[in-house]
Amino acid sequence: MIRDPLPGRARKPRSVGLTMVIDKGLGLGPTRALLELAGEYIDFIKLGFGTAALYPERILREKVALIRGCGVEPYPGGTFLEAALLQGRLEAFLAATWDLGFRAVEVSEGTIDLDHRDRERAIRAARNMGFTVITEVGKKDGSQELDPAAALSRIEADLAAGAAKVIVEGRESGKGVGLYDREGRLKLGLLERLVAGLPDPGAIIWEAPLKAQQEELIARFGVNVNLGNVPPEEVIALEALRCGLRGDTLRLAIEGARPAAR
Amino acid sequence: MIRDPLPGRARKPRSVGLTMVIDKGLGLGPTRALLELAGEYIDFIKLGFGTAALYPERILREKVALIRGCGVEPYPGGTFLEAALLQGRLEAFLAATWDLGFRAVEVSEGTIDLDHRDRERAIRAARNMGFTVITEVGKKDGSQELDPAAALSRIEADLAAGAAKVIVEGRESGKGVGLYDREGRLKLGLLERLVAGLPDPGAIIWEAPLKAQQEELIARFGVNVNLGNVPPEEVIALEALRCGLRGDTLRLAIEGARPAAR
Amino acid sequence: MIRDPLPGRARKPRSVGLTMVIDKGLGLGPTRALLELAGEYIDFIKLGFGTAALYPERILREKVALIRGCGVEPYPGGTFLEAALLQGRLEAFLAATWDLGFRAVEVSEGTIDLDHRDRERAIRAARNMGFTVITEVGKKDGSQELDPAAALSRIEADLAAGAAKVIVEGRESGKGVGLYDREGRLKLGLLERLVAGLPDPGAIIWEAPLKAQQEELIARFGVNVNLGNVPPEEVIALEALRCGLRGDTLRLAIEGARPAAR
Repeated sequence: MIRDPLPGRARKPRSVGLTMVIDKGLGLGPTRALLELAGEYIDFIKLGFGTAALYPERILREKVALIRGCGVEPYPGGTFLEAALLQGRLEAFLAATWDLGFRAVEVSEGTIDLDHRDRERAIRAARNMGFTVITEVGKKDGSQELDPAAALSRIEADLAAGAAKVIVEGRESGKGVGLYDREGRLKLGLLERLVAGLPDPGAIIWEAPLKAQQEELIARFGVNVNLGNVPPEEVIALEALRCGLRGDTLRLAIEGARPAAR
Repeated sequence: MIRDPLPGRARKPRSVGLTMVIDKGLGLGPTRALLELAGEYIDFIKLGFGTAALYPERILREKVALIRGCGVEPYPGGTFLEAALLQGRLEAFLAATWDLGFRAVEVSEGTIDLDHRDRERAIRAARNMGFTVITEVGKKDGSQELDPAAALSRIEADLAAGAAKVIVEGRESGKGVGLYDREGRLKLGLLERLVAGLPDPGAIIWEAPLKAQQEELIARFGVNVNLGNVPPEEVIALEALRCGLRGDTLRLAIEGARPAAR
Repeated sequence: MIRDPLPGRARKPRSVGLTMVIDKGLGLGPTRALLELAGEYIDFIKLGFGTAALYPERILREKVALIRGCGVEPYPGGTFLEAALLQGRLEAFLAATWDLGFRAVEVSEGTIDLDHRDRERAIRAARNMGFTVITEVGKKDGSQELDPAAALSRIEADLAAGAAKVIVEGRESGKGVGLYDREGRLKLGLLERLVAGLPDPGAIIWEAPLKAQQEELIARFGVNVNLGNVPPEEVIALEALRCGLRGDTLRLAIEGARPAAR
């Protein structure tokens, strides 16, 4: 009917412009409704933290199958695997996760500390079983600022070990963690230092739960930036942002500020 | 069982006491559940910004029919029509919108700038096709304060051109825009200057996404004030506010501060 | 698959570790989806404020039966009973509530002021009809600070009159009320003064809508603290907090800080 004010949004199958949803416990009906409406705009659904452990098993199996049947990849939150590593039960965790129907996992150390060899071992073990592996850099504890040099070497090592994408931690709140200050504003200097050293920004998924963060990252990286921790109820609103169908980015289109070209 | 502590709430069909819901992408199942529970308390459902463009067409048609079947009027967000105006495709937009089953549209200039003749032309074009037309005053960009005199002459012209109601912009956030300061508090002086010049406050729908805003507007204008951008999950809570079935307004009833009489 | 990092979470049937959900108007489908996924982790569902008065009667009856059929106790929000008391219609309210299928009620004075004899009379009247009675201490109006001595004598009197549990008011927002300051931070001094005088902290349900509040109360009282006003979409996330399957409490497990032993 009308053309997208901001053109160039990648369609499925795509390797950039990914949207990862954080799911804190959607039931089967709401999951079905979400996928029916917005499945085209979702690439990954993360069952946040260790919530997957708390589902009735029958419901979990049905949900995983439902999501995968719609061309979206579900995976359990990194904290769940961290708890498994802490208990020395990585292999049991991976086997059970596979058996439940998951084909992607996240390797993180948001809470635990992991030797870099153990981290790479975990990535390779999951890859060898056939999982798509997503890793994460950054601590959940906001008292430590993200160190760009350390993050960069971690990102490089993760990709070399077989990670498909690397997430930069933003938590569910988007405040006082990683690239965000206590009010959730993007620390632009820190972002630029991180980006300067990146061979390919497309390898990164930026956790950006808040609209202002999504908007700023779209303005900085273009409509096909990879964004994560998007609340389920915000998926269509984010897609409107990406396409210039929301005031904040329609303005970008009017100003002729073609974000992709910045 | 018990009488409403704040009496006088208008029932359907009604021309005041309207509640407009902002819908950022409810699937069919959740929409059905909302209407089944609270359809009596909803007059309009706005498919926020340009989200209507992003629905699978079959789902959109079914959703529009479902909503209208429950006696509620759905309409696409103003940003969608602004994008169409920007592309010189108003007629195509209106025709396609009608064909999808909508019978109401919003004419706004929250992001674009519109000559007042173009604005009135858009209102008349939609009216002539048979649409109920809702217009909006105010910019989405919070850097410009609402100008009461300009808003008043716009409101008058819109109503003269055939608008059924005029919305005062409050965005989805209710913060740093229109009548609200950065913390979402109502700028009372600004409100009073606007109201002083209004022939009929019942012609206005106040966007008021936050509870404190709804409460203050109910205290100021009575239980049958028109409120907009109400989140779907807050519809019943707002209705409880209107009826004095929530602490904040039950207090009004106790104090004998009959809001309708203020 | 893996053990809970924080052990000892009570399973149903349980008298501690209760989770009370605040429901501002979930439709039948979403209620069913919530219970199917998380019914094991919910003990009470409060139909917030006076919202129960606003449901179509058929939907309300079906919802109450659905919730009770899943082993969860629904009850109408305290403001509803306060409105009834204000109108001198307590008996009619209790009879109608029973007839609708409820088997629990809340006696509060968050908005109204109640003579202590009237309060105890209301508790006894509901108990005599067969209701489980939950009472609440604290005012909704944030201008009055919670008085620990007065709250303690009220709690004792309520339990003596037959209350099953006593809620400490936190509202839906968790800010500027009861034990919380304007930013929603727990007033620890006030909490400790209240707890010091309590014969049994297990008799209390702490309204704690915000994650940081839930986390702090779990750290203070252990995984089986009773928590209330939990939003429906946060039930599984709270359960992950209780079990140490979320970063914030997995850290507690790592530090060997066994909350239950504190």
